[in-house]
Amino acid sequence: VVEWFDDLAVGMRFKSQEKVVTREDIKRFASEFDPQPYHLDEAAAEQTPLKGLAASGWHTAAIAMRLAVDLHPFGPHPLFGLGVDELRWLAPLRPGDRLHLEGEVVELTPVGEFTNTRKNGVAPLSRGALLLSIDTVPEMPTAVRRRVSAALTNLRQSNQRPRP
Amino acid sequence: VVEWFDDLAVGMRFKSQEKVVTREDIKRFASEFDPQPYHLDEAAAEQTPLKGLAASGWHTAAIAMRLAVDLHPFGPHPLFGLGVDELRWLAPLRPGDRLHLEGEVVELTPVGEFTNTRKNGVAPLSRGALLLSIDTVPEMPTAVRRRVSAALTNLRQSNQRPRP
Repeated sequence: VVEWFDDLAVGMRFKSQEKVVTREDIKRFASEFDPQPYHLDEAAAEQTPLKGLAASGWHTAAIAMRLAVDLHPFGPHPLFGLGVDELRWLAPLRPGDRLHLEGEVVELTPVGEFTNTRKNGVAPLSRGALLLSIDTVPEMPTAVRRRVSAALTNLRQSNQRPRP
Repeated sequence: VVEWFDDLAVGMRFKSQEKVVTREDIKRFASEFDPQPYHLDEAAAEQTPLKGLAASGWHTAAIAMRLAVDLHPFGPHPLFGLGVDELRWLAPLRPGDRLHLEGEVVELTPVGEFTNTRKNGVAPLSRGALLLSIDTVPEMPTAVRRRVSAALTNLRQSNQRPRP
C-alpha cells in the first residue's frame, strides 16, 4: 500500500479490474450528457463516421475514473485530480467491450503549499500535498490515453524541499 | 449557422445556456463513477480539502459536453471530439451552482484524409474532415478550462491544401 510520498517511485505501475459496457449503459449516459445519434440509436449510428453505436468519450472517461477509484492505488488516501492533459479517444467503445485501466507513475513533484491557489490553477489542498502524473491506457482497441495530475493529501512530506 | 469550413474563423465565440447542478445530480453521478467521500456525503466532505460536497470533475466535464451539444455550434453537423488538452478543475462545483460554457475558435486545421488512423491516433472520419480547437470557460468560480480538438465531418473542404 502506498501511504507516504516516499512509498511512491517513478515507474510504479497500477492495473485495474475489468468493466463491461452495455448498450443500455451507453444510451443512458448519452441521453443525459451527450445526446447525439452515434451514442443513442443503432440505425442512425451506422450512418455516422463511427459506423455503429459507440459510447460518449466522456462516458469512457467516467468509467476510467471508477476503475481508478476501485483500485485504491493510494490505500486509504483519496484520488484527487487537478487536471488532465493529452486525453485522446483512439477508437470507439462498443456495447460488450471490456475496459481496464493501466497506470504508471511518470513524475513525482512534491508541493509544499499553494500560496495563491487561483493563480496556480489548483484547488486548495492541505500543506504537504503533492502531485503526480499517471498515464492510463485502457485495453486496446478500445483506447483512451491520458496524462493525469493527481494529488495525494495528508501524506508525509518528501524529504525533498518543496518548491516555492 | 456554421455549415461549411469556410464559415469558421479564428476568434468566433460560442456561449451556451445555463445548467443548475443539484445535490442529487452530484451524488447520483458520483455513486456510479466517482464514489469518494467529497462527492457523496456532506459530513464526510467537510473533512476533506474540498470543505464540502462537490461534483466529480468528470461530472462537470460531462455537463459541459451536454451544454455544447445543446448549443449546436455547427448547425446540423455533429460535435465529435478527438481529444482534450489542458483540462483543469479550478474550483469545486457545488450544489446549486450554475454552469455555462463559453468557447472560442482558436485554431483551424483542415485535414484531407487519415491514411493510417491508428498511427495518427484519430478515429476514422470521412474525407474532408477537419479539426478545430476550442477553449471553453464555464462561469467562475466554478471553473473548468479545456482545449478541445473537435472534428466536423461532411463539410466542404477548405481551399487551403490539406496537410499530408
